[in-house]
Amino acid sequence: MSPLSSPLLTDLYQLTMLQAYVAAGMRGTAVFELFVRKLPPHRNFLMAAGLDQALGFVEGLRFSAEELEWVDASGLFRSGFAATLGGLRFTGDIHAMPEGTVFFANEPILRVTAPLPEAQLLETRLLNLVHYETLIASKASRAVLAARGKGLVDFGLRRAHGGEAGLLAARASYLAGFAGTATTLAGPMFGIPVVGTMAHSFVQAHETEAEAFAHFARVFPKNAVLLIDTYDTVAGARKAAALAAQGCAIRGVRLDSGDLATLSRQVRRILDDAGLPDAIVFASGNLDEYRVADLVAGGAPIDAFGIGTSLATSSDAPYLDCVYKLQEYDGRARRKRSSGKATWPGRKQVFRRYASDGTLAGDVVSLETDAQPGAPLLAPVMRGGRRVGAPVALAAARGYAQSELARLPTGLRALSDAAEPYPVEIAPSLQALAADVDRATS
Amino acid sequence: MSPLSSPLLTDLYQLTMLQAYVAAGMRGTAVFELFVRKLPPHRNFLMAAGLDQALGFVEGLRFSAEELEWVDASGLFRSGFAATLGGLRFTGDIHAMPEGTVFFANEPILRVTAPLPEAQLLETRLLNLVHYETLIASKASRAVLAARGKGLVDFGLRRAHGGEAGLLAARASYLAGFAGTATTLAGPMFGIPVVGTMAHSFVQAHETEAEAFAHFARVFPKNAVLLIDTYDTVAGARKAAALAAQGCAIRGVRLDSGDLATLSRQVRRILDDAGLPDAIVFASGNLDEYRVADLVAGGAPIDAFGIGTSLATSSDAPYLDCVYKLQEYDGRARRKRSSGKATWPGRKQVFRRYASDGTLAGDVVSLETDAQPGAPLLAPVMRGGRRVGAPVALAAARGYAQSELARLPTGLRALSDAAEPYPVEIAPSLQALAADVDRATS
Repeated sequence: MSPLSSPLLTDLYQLTMLQAYVAAGMRGTAVFELFVRKLPPHRNFLMAAGLDQALGFVEGLRFSAEELEWVDASGLFRSGFAATLGGLRFTGDIHAMPEGTVFFANEPILRVTAPLPEAQLLETRLLNLVHYETLIASKASRAVLAARGKGLVDFGLRRAHGGEAGLLAARASYLAGFAGTATTLAGPMFGIPVVGTMAHSFVQAHETEAEAFAHFARVFPKNAVLLIDTYDTVAGARKAAALAAQGCAIRGVRLDSGDLATLSRQVRRILDDAGLPDAIVFASGNLDEYRVADLVAGGAPIDAFGIGTSLATSSDAPYLDCVYKLQEYDGRARRKRSSGKATWPGRKQVFRRYASDGTLAGDVVSLETDAQPGAPLLAPVMRGGRRVGAPVALAAARGYAQSELARLPTGLRALSDAAEPYPVEIAPSLQALAADVDRATS
Repeated sequence: MSPLSSPLLTDLYQLTMLQAYVAAGMRGTAVFELFVRKLPPHRNFLMAAGLDQALGFVEGLRFSAEELEWVDASGLFRSGFAATLGGLRFTGDIHAMPEGTVFFANEPILRVTAPLPEAQLLETRLLNLVHYETLIASKASRAVLAARGKGLVDFGLRRAHGGEAGLLAARASYLAGFAGTATTLAGPMFGIPVVGTMAHSFVQAHETEAEAFAHFARVFPKNAVLLIDTYDTVAGARKAAALAAQGCAIRGVRLDSGDLATLSRQVRRILDDAGLPDAIVFASGNLDEYRVADLVAGGAPIDAFGIGTSLATSSDAPYLDCVYKLQEYDGRARRKRSSGKATWPGRKQVFRRYASDGTLAGDVVSLETDAQPGAPLLAPVMRGGRRVGAPVALAAARGYAQSELARLPTGLRALSDAAEPYPVEIAPSLQALAADVDRATS
């Protein structure tokens, strides 16, 4: 079994609660919603991602014989509980915002409606998948805005937090508008373009840098992007240009260290002077959306950027305050009032209004039954444990994400805090319900 | 195939370089070393982890028929390259510091000696595994020092970056001294104690909090840890105490929000007054090593802490400047001189001296052949592609990690920057070699 598809990839308390629910016959309909309580510092919006992986997890949820054996032998549960788990499948409904949707704090992006034990059991892995992809799509969106049309490539696998993070970072950043990834497996797995050049070790392993360049260009004719900063970037650019002048076509060069603004100009001039206007200048090395924005704004002649660690770890905000909360059980709205962590009860919908130019104008979070002006963002994606319709192709979701970014009001496109945060109103009906619930559970 | 064990879980350039090496017959012996260039802010030491996963990856490295088919069809490589990959195995040697070893900047923690194509191909996934577990063991060590013997539990899966991160965070934090994890699968997978209580949703799903508590205590007699902050922590504690007074034995209570220092005292008093001195007080909710240190220093009557997001994402330092660099090829030392990223060439060893009381006194990074006073930290762990000896049991590595933390000088145990950083000297022989290499590759 792959650990990633094991239902034991969950918090133990999901299983202990499940046993208690089953023991008491608490199989009433539960409604859980997944949302972010607060945006991280300097974030003006988030982008929903990970739904496809989440639905795949829900559809495939079942315990193998080996897993049930462990449950039985663990001594943590009553005898007979393994048999209960063996028959468990998800039979409920899921509503969600499409991947690529821009959203804000306190807006549910996914809602699960199912018998309590099933709905509860989803929590940990659902959050684990949706939280991470949303985190990365949101981070990647900022780089996409900063790059103003220049190409972006994900270089993050080596310092992503484990292998699944690397794969999902490739997917989430592509969804948000990156051109491709260096993570090879993301090609066969998600159909994402994979790109790669050479490492410093390649240059070092040859007797001279010029020899390394010539060797690589021979093996990948016309397609070689030569890494020119192993010893001295400007000297490296001259060697690359000399090679091309000898008739050995190259695709371009990569800079990975030093003052990229200055070096890219020097390198561009060397390439142009050698009659290589089509050779691209690719830049990498501790880049993030701020450095990309500076380089683009300063007019640095860089054609594309590789972003690694800061992207795959969302290093300035490595997590979202993302939660999955019970909002209704057995026909009654529920609410948690814990200090600083209170939630809005009931089955909710997010209604979005647009300005006449198509930009986002304001959202209302309301009860599903209390429609507000604007378009509802949550739509059914699973009914009775089966997906509604075919999975959305990643390319289509990517197109949708681009249209969402195009609709962002100017203020929200900044990398720093917007002067005016985006208006998200809590509908009066929802506020009234919260007060009702509080009175009932005092 | 599981994506986590696919050799395509690598940067594309590892494969493009491999093709070039094979095409040119560059199969000479390469020496790569894995090290951290610089400690993150406020870190005084790091703890090596992830070696067992790394060796498992290396031993299992092979391309399946399906993967070779993709390579062939991708259009990225010469025809015939898939056949080369099909026969590829790792046949080299690996030296490493044992898991749990405390180490510092510029000290190699792992060295690969193998034919160039094989050694190069390891880079991405080796870093991906060792970087993350080392990051988390290092973060967890700080919490272990801060907790001064109080119990710590990993709660991080839901906001870890993907499923593998959650599993490896459970392992790395247990290695560093945590008592257990909430991640169920870490039980069968690594033999780590798994623990769990209840969520707020459990309380919310019942008509009253008292009913939820009674229900859970019945299903898990003597073992129930009741979550008491869903509505009002003090009132919750009274309900838990009343339940126990009715003869329904509980293990303790959990606080998850609010002012934990004050609330833990109020709750402890309620439990003591009810004749429940053995009922434990468990605390969680946005904790990190700083808050644990404050609560412990302030004498808060908390028996154990659950740490989630800050642990599994190492939120204040979500990555290490961890790299894998070519230091020797075909018998000659190699060195990268890129601006700000220069490396020390050659096959190295780290020699450590201890004070008379057993604490760490200073390290020297030297050439392997230039022994220095002190104990060498890198030892052979793989020869000719096979592990040397049986894998180290996690419990043994955990014991070793504890002995390493016990040997930390007082100054390095602080959560903030030590007044004096730990002394790591670069041996004169190594400095001389670097100068030699620079002259040869100018």
